[in-house]
Amino acid sequence: MWVATLCFFLVASGVLSKPVDDEPTCGYDACPLSDPATLNVHVVPHSHDDVGWLKTFDQYYFQDVQNVISSVIVALKLNPERRFVQVETAFFKKWWDQQKDSVRQDVINLVNNGQFEIINGAWSMNDEAAVNYQYTIDQYTLGLRYLEDRLGKCSRPRVGWQIDPFGHSREQASISAQLGFDSLYFARLDYRDKINRLSKKSGDLLWRGSSSLGNAADIFTSVLYNHYSAPPGFCFDIVCDDDPIIDDPESPDYNYQNRVETFANFVREQASKYPTNNIIVVMGDDFRYQAALNSYINTDRLIAGFDLFPQTFQGKTIKVFYSTPSCYAKAVNDYAITNDYNLEIKTDDFFPYADGVGNLVVGYFTSRPASKRFVRDGNILLQTAKQLAAAVNVPYDNVEINSLKEAMGVLQHHDAITGTELIDVTHDYHRLLHKGISDTSDAVDPILSNLITGSGDNDLQFKSCLLANVSYCPETKSDQFTLVVYNPLSRVVSSPISVPVDTETWSIVDPEGQEVIYQVEPTVIDFSEIIPEAVSPFFLEFVATDLPPFGYKVYTFAKTESAKIKSVTVGNEDTSFEVDETTGLLTSVTMNGVTLDISQDFLYYTSGGGSQAYVFTPASNDPQTIASTVTTSVVEGDIYSAVVQEFSDWAHQTIKVYKHDSSHIEFDYIIGPLDINDGGKEVISRFTTSLNTEGAFYTDSNGRETLKRVRNYRPDYEYTDEQPVSGNYYPITSKLAIKDEDSGLEVAVLNDRSQGGSSIEDGQLELMVHRAISTSDAFGLDEQEYDHGIVIRGKHYLVVGPSSGNGEKSLAAIERDVVQRKFLQPWVFVTNQDVSDQLVNLQFSNLKTSLPDNVQLLTLEPWKDNTILLRLEHVLEKDDDPNLSVDVTVDLSDLFVAFTISELAETTLAGNIPIDEYEPLHWPGSTNDTPKVRRDVGADLQVTLSPMQIRTFLATVTYN
Amino acid sequence: MWVATLCFFLVASGVLSKPVDDEPTCGYDACPLSDPATLNVHVVPHSHDDVGWLKTFDQYYFQDVQNVISSVIVALKLNPERRFVQVETAFFKKWWDQQKDSVRQDVINLVNNGQFEIINGAWSMNDEAAVNYQYTIDQYTLGLRYLEDRLGKCSRPRVGWQIDPFGHSREQASISAQLGFDSLYFARLDYRDKINRLSKKSGDLLWRGSSSLGNAADIFTSVLYNHYSAPPGFCFDIVCDDDPIIDDPESPDYNYQNRVETFANFVREQASKYPTNNIIVVMGDDFRYQAALNSYINTDRLIAGFDLFPQTFQGKTIKVFYSTPSCYAKAVNDYAITNDYNLEIKTDDFFPYADGVGNLVVGYFTSRPASKRFVRDGNILLQTAKQLAAAVNVPYDNVEINSLKEAMGVLQHHDAITGTELIDVTHDYHRLLHKGISDTSDAVDPILSNLITGSGDNDLQFKSCLLANVSYCPETKSDQFTLVVYNPLSRVVSSPISVPVDTETWSIVDPEGQEVIYQVEPTVIDFSEIIPEAVSPFFLEFVATDLPPFGYKVYTFAKTESAKIKSVTVGNEDTSFEVDETTGLLTSVTMNGVTLDISQDFLYYTSGGGSQAYVFTPASNDPQTIASTVTTSVVEGDIYSAVVQEFSDWAHQTIKVYKHDSSHIEFDYIIGPLDINDGGKEVISRFTTSLNTEGAFYTDSNGRETLKRVRNYRPDYEYTDEQPVSGNYYPITSKLAIKDEDSGLEVAVLNDRSQGGSSIEDGQLELMVHRAISTSDAFGLDEQEYDHGIVIRGKHYLVVGPSSGNGEKSLAAIERDVVQRKFLQPWVFVTNQDVSDQLVNLQFSNLKTSLPDNVQLLTLEPWKDNTILLRLEHVLEKDDDPNLSVDVTVDLSDLFVAFTISELAETTLAGNIPIDEYEPLHWPGSTNDTPKVRRDVGADLQVTLSPMQIRTFLATVTYN
Repeated sequence: MWVATLCFFLVASGVLSKPVDDEPTCGYDACPLSDPATLNVHVVPHSHDDVGWLKTFDQYYFQDVQNVISSVIVALKLNPERRFVQVETAFFKKWWDQQKDSVRQDVINLVNNGQFEIINGAWSMNDEAAVNYQYTIDQYTLGLRYLEDRLGKCSRPRVGWQIDPFGHSREQASISAQLGFDSLYFARLDYRDKINRLSKKSGDLLWRGSSSLGNAADIFTSVLYNHYSAPPGFCFDIVCDDDPIIDDPESPDYNYQNRVETFANFVREQASKYPTNNIIVVMGDDFRYQAALNSYINTDRLIAGFDLFPQTFQGKTIKVFYSTPSCYAKAVNDYAITNDYNLEIKTDDFFPYADGVGNLVVGYFTSRPASKRFVRDGNILLQTAKQLAAAVNVPYDNVEINSLKEAMGVLQHHDAITGTELIDVTHDYHRLLHKGISDTSDAVDPILSNLITGSGDNDLQFKSCLLANVSYCPETKSDQFTLVVYNPLSRVVSSPISVPVDTETWSIVDPEGQEVIYQVEPTVIDFSEIIPEAVSPFFLEFVATDLPPFGYKVYTFAKTESAKIKSVTVGNEDTSFEVDETTGLLTSVTMNGVTLDISQDFLYYTSGGGSQAYVFTPASNDPQTIASTVTTSVVEGDIYSAVVQEFSDWAHQTIKVYKHDSSHIEFDYIIGPLDINDGGKEVISRFTTSLNTEGAFYTDSNGRETLKRVRNYRPDYEYTDEQPVSGNYYPITSKLAIKDEDSGLEVAVLNDRSQGGSSIEDGQLELMVHRAISTSDAFGLDEQEYDHGIVIRGKHYLVVGPSSGNGEKSLAAIERDVVQRKFLQPWVFVTNQDVSDQLVNLQFSNLKTSLPDNVQLLTLEPWKDNTILLRLEHVLEKDDDPNLSVDVTVDLSDLFVAFTISELAETTLAGNIPIDEYEPLHWPGSTNDTPKVRRDVGADLQVTLSPMQIRTFLATVTYN
Repeated sequence: MWVATLCFFLVASGVLSKPVDDEPTCGYDACPLSDPATLNVHVVPHSHDDVGWLKTFDQYYFQDVQNVISSVIVALKLNPERRFVQVETAFFKKWWDQQKDSVRQDVINLVNNGQFEIINGAWSMNDEAAVNYQYTIDQYTLGLRYLEDRLGKCSRPRVGWQIDPFGHSREQASISAQLGFDSLYFARLDYRDKINRLSKKSGDLLWRGSSSLGNAADIFTSVLYNHYSAPPGFCFDIVCDDDPIIDDPESPDYNYQNRVETFANFVREQASKYPTNNIIVVMGDDFRYQAALNSYINTDRLIAGFDLFPQTFQGKTIKVFYSTPSCYAKAVNDYAITNDYNLEIKTDDFFPYADGVGNLVVGYFTSRPASKRFVRDGNILLQTAKQLAAAVNVPYDNVEINSLKEAMGVLQHHDAITGTELIDVTHDYHRLLHKGISDTSDAVDPILSNLITGSGDNDLQFKSCLLANVSYCPETKSDQFTLVVYNPLSRVVSSPISVPVDTETWSIVDPEGQEVIYQVEPTVIDFSEIIPEAVSPFFLEFVATDLPPFGYKVYTFAKTESAKIKSVTVGNEDTSFEVDETTGLLTSVTMNGVTLDISQDFLYYTSGGGSQAYVFTPASNDPQTIASTVTTSVVEGDIYSAVVQEFSDWAHQTIKVYKHDSSHIEFDYIIGPLDINDGGKEVISRFTTSLNTEGAFYTDSNGRETLKRVRNYRPDYEYTDEQPVSGNYYPITSKLAIKDEDSGLEVAVLNDRSQGGSSIEDGQLELMVHRAISTSDAFGLDEQEYDHGIVIRGKHYLVVGPSSGNGEKSLAAIERDVVQRKFLQPWVFVTNQDVSDQLVNLQFSNLKTSLPDNVQLLTLEPWKDNTILLRLEHVLEKDDDPNLSVDVTVDLSDLFVAFTISELAETTLAGNIPIDEYEPLHWPGSTNDTPKVRRDVGADLQVTLSPMQIRTFLATVTYN
């Protein structure tokens, strides 16, 4: 075997024995050479280390992962041919922090010579169904920054390594490409898709991650052949029972030649199903390589065995060597360029994922809905904190804000936000996220206090009321309190604010000193049945009007004895709905100039055997209604009009129209606890219209671009109708929509957390809102009472109208606006201190002007001394809106109040690679026949964005 | 913590960072210093690696042990404080052979600085019940030589590490002391003994290994506190579920202080039960440290934790540090000397071993009797081969002879000769031993051929007939064949030789050309029911008369048609026996001038639940007879007279008196297969007399010294009568005897393999001969049909007479003579080639004279160029015989035919330590109030031996 021989020679002669201060030879230069004349087998040692699942993050670290990294490092040092790919930076940080300098230097050396290659590099291996793209970008940014600071340029990943998530989003592909990755690997795709791909050799493909961005979002993608496991019988890990290689010819268990031949047979089988003379064979699995030497000793022998017992494939010698996914991608790229070979191009995504006949892994789109919402809360506070930190020059390494960044990174893990972890681990995730939020509140508190009082010498303390949704907030139980309402969007918004209160009459004063109108209603249910805390009996709502971008307004509350002030607002005449007096159900809505018959109901599927955290397999495909009649009551107030519905003692909903906002109708539901004695319930909210939708519906991809779905159809392979319902479920991070091409009408339901959804009948939309289950799926979690006893509260936002919109904007643009306003809704800080004499600055904005409607300042966070990370995004797709889906230019030269930008250095998406150091592999099929993305920015600091483009800059700033 | 701090400092300043060629600092100089003012906790990482048990030797190596050693070496390199003790040289050799030079150098460095300390160092951790002392000495010699050659002086073990064998022999203590060990450790002793010892702080003791050798066989012995396992909850090994130490104070699982305190509690409890301010805490278990880093990372933290959270014991600081058993012994020794503290002295042994109430681990004394005999065969051939190799100057590293040495080393393992391994492993042991025997036969064949023909140019090929006992030998199925009968004793002996033949009439010619008388009898049973080979219907027996010491005689056989020659020998009139015509059982014997009423019968215990490979727990304590009447037939011939008994279709016996030998009566039994449908059978041969034995009986210790046993009594602790039978079982390697003090009469049964035995009633002796079991004990083997279907053939030799003997010798001396002649009975090589014209030297001896009756030349084997390892032993105990139990001098100046000795360099028992480099620890209580052993040898090459003394020399020789 050529590589081994060469390397042994080099070692012996000392060439590869690199002292510490040698020039690094990482990247593609460090790759073993693939030989065009052989079948090249890239053997890739890896360990898949879940950032929590059956154990907590800490338990996995201390019980398992510290052993992996420590033992790998020493094993790599013993043989310069050995390689390992390290993935999860959350674990790597914990490990690195515990190492002494000599070990750290070992790691740096091994990174520099390519033996220890960082791939993916994000804080965790994020889920792809339930995450929003902002979460994903942030957790890559966090991980890659950590690596760059400690390990240098050679640690920059070139590989997306999403081997375990249960289905794959197109947005993940797009983000991967924009991060500067050259390749993306995964293992889980629909079993039919996999069979089909292997049969036509398209397991290696070119994935077009965006329909707006063109080949800027193309990425080479490889589907692993044998899950992410070592070939059957070749797990040399300490926890495996597979036979080691016994090379002692005297031993009765001698198996060397036989083992080599068995491996060669596997290799031949795999090679026959991939397009080039390279294949990638991973050696690893969950938490493997805890005794790395064990695995390497045997793999060394296996590799050497191909010299001793030469093997061929289709007349070519089989060459086996340690490699990495990046080296595999480079080898395939070399082949494609040399042979002008075009890989198959894929433009949709890999949802939904059935891992076997009828085994649809779509339950987790909705599983543990409380976690999914909690993460969204965490994101709002994190963006708020980063924006404020940038405004007042808080350094990057602020421990309190990093606490939330890291918690958010962990929560994106594909067994965290997914809800597919054991309940004890759920509690630990919630503890981590709660700690992050609490820490970050502590960091934001003095920023806000100083801004508001104009002085560092104050005693203000602001709290976040995380349980306000269940009517608990100790600060607002007071007779007087003060709210600071922060708007993390880069444009002016008005937003309803809801606070739990103990009494009905208040005096609210806005920053201009004006009394603010409000509405107080009793809570729909008695929340004291859900939480032990002293809940308040009422919710007070008011509208925080014209909240400044990246800024706040302060509202002071005082209890009064008098009746509330008379309404002065104009009612919302554009948007309304009707409810049937007999059934209590919605019958029609009026919005955007049209009235549409539409009903809404809660129903549930009884869980069939096989449903649990991951899988959704209903016992029957006809969901049952919860109630034949729904009890209703009507609420009319100054802030909103509403109908309160009681479907049962475990299902309530309030349908609301806010008078200040005609863009949507809100469905505020409270569901649970669910009785699981029948096997479990998977509850949906279903909207029914008579739209002729011809089987089509539309879903977002991680909250960003839209994908068209067709019921009972897959673009890439023949659909088989094993699960008529769950086989049509897709992840809905922000929007599920249907269209009637004839009438031009469109119905969209936006949500406040990610969920599973579908359109099972034409004209229908359903979103699964909650699930509690006593059966078990085959994915290893096996909880007795999955999510039993949990009550969740969530919101859907209904938008109806002509696709062409309301005359100003297309319906897509209207929907995007609502999505953004809900995704980054204002964060409310509250104090019940007597602060009246300290309130100096009742209003603040870090932006001198609102950005255009089609732009969001996606990220603003401190980066280094006098440097800020700044991301701008165009929020519309290329065909969303004739006026807004166009290039837009933002002038950054005089935008910020707190600082002035002197220079903009563009980077790849995570901020770690200066754009001029970014040298992606070029693929023959990746032609730019779609819109070019913009990369121009001049000294005038004008930044132009194409539709859906995100541009990342390191801005050199001077604080004012 | 003082040691850690110091060492870290030393590392930082480079002092401990030892380059390859530094002067080693191993041995006690490398020990961490115990502080007299603290409680010193010696933490000892170890892995107990069975040389076969549930897996074969090879399987354990490739699946487990290679990982242990490899991962330990790298872990030790990372932190100079870490230590590890390596035990089994069989595994170490396999590992070493696979390493590259740089790794080997690492090992040498770590041996030289004391981090990687070799303890025990024998080929395996031998059993102590079923082994003969010669096996034990040989396997230590093999292991320690291997280590010395590769690792140098620093690898010389100072520690006996017998942590797993199931009870402990006094001879093992004696051998350990004679090997130069300063300490001996074990874990398994009777549960009552352990409770008692801990209560009186005598778990550290001084064991007097010999009643003849005085303090030359004293050894410090320490009983491990918590088996050989890490403290409960502190198994940090990868296969354990104990919590790792979580030192991250942010983690909800943070447990650092708590874990330190829990460990300290364990330490305090242990320290309260040991006599000095030192305790040893082992961290390990079976096949642990396969991911060594894992364990060390946590143990590092644990140790450092005693600095962070200081702990005390009885006012003293608890000091915790990595250490080794040798360093523990040195610390206790320092304490004893400083405080003039006398440890308790023990003079008996640690048999039998009950690991809990009624759970007597005595079944293995007999388990798998075929293996136990096979090992004895292997030993005879091995001694033969080594003697011949020394005679003709074959080098030490002869691969074929080493094959048998290594196999014999493996077979001594405490799950090999014990019969406590899975049946597949048994088969692998038999394969190994068979290969060793076959290889060594191949080595001996040309030596013999050359000696016999006087030429290297011959085509003779001699075979060993290993299945002759079941009447199969392809060579003797011929019409003519030639036997070479080799005598491995250092004195002249005559021995009956038995060969299977197909016909009844033969002409046998001895080296002098004389016709030899013989006797042919049909086989007692049809052995074709046992083995598939073509067995012969007859056995021919003749007496090989006056076989020369360390030499052979050649006998030629030719088939004749005529009747056999007429007997010319005189019958044996001194020794005879009688059998009852009705019962068919033995009634009396006449020997040594007395006639004694004695009966013998086969009986069996039905196995109770709890019996299996290890444990013997009969369902009832009254064994059942096999048959009420025994069918008998009488045989009278020129060689022997016999009665053939059939007890049942699975139990036959031939009682024999040889006409040439009046020293004993032979009981040649064939037992099996055993029906196990009733739970299993444990078959005994029981001799019953009317001797008044007052509960006492006598057993040998590993075939060497004699220990007096008293029924239902233990010298060291209060006996409790939970198992009236098995509670009185002891290992019988060579002799079980009873005495009547009034009449002066003695009865001894000698055996041909080790067995369990006892005297359950006064005047009775029983030896367990076979056992097959369907129940299971609690020791982890758990075979469904333990040894089911196996037929075994064995021999007992009965000696009866006055203890004072026959006028020439004491009965003890007579018994020792028979034991020796049976233990090293002549080895028969056979060929059926037509060799008549090649037979030049029909007789050979390497000794010019027989050694005295009380001396055996225990070992003669090639060692280095012109150097031979030579061991002389005095074969009698100090009180055995008034004339023979005296100092005896052997003149080595002109003893050997093949070579002349020019110089003798005495060494410790294994030949690895020159006697002037031997510096044992001195213990206050180890006074020499018993006979002094001789250490004098002059230039005249006169070697004097005291009773039971073994002296080992490297003899410089010149071949003649």
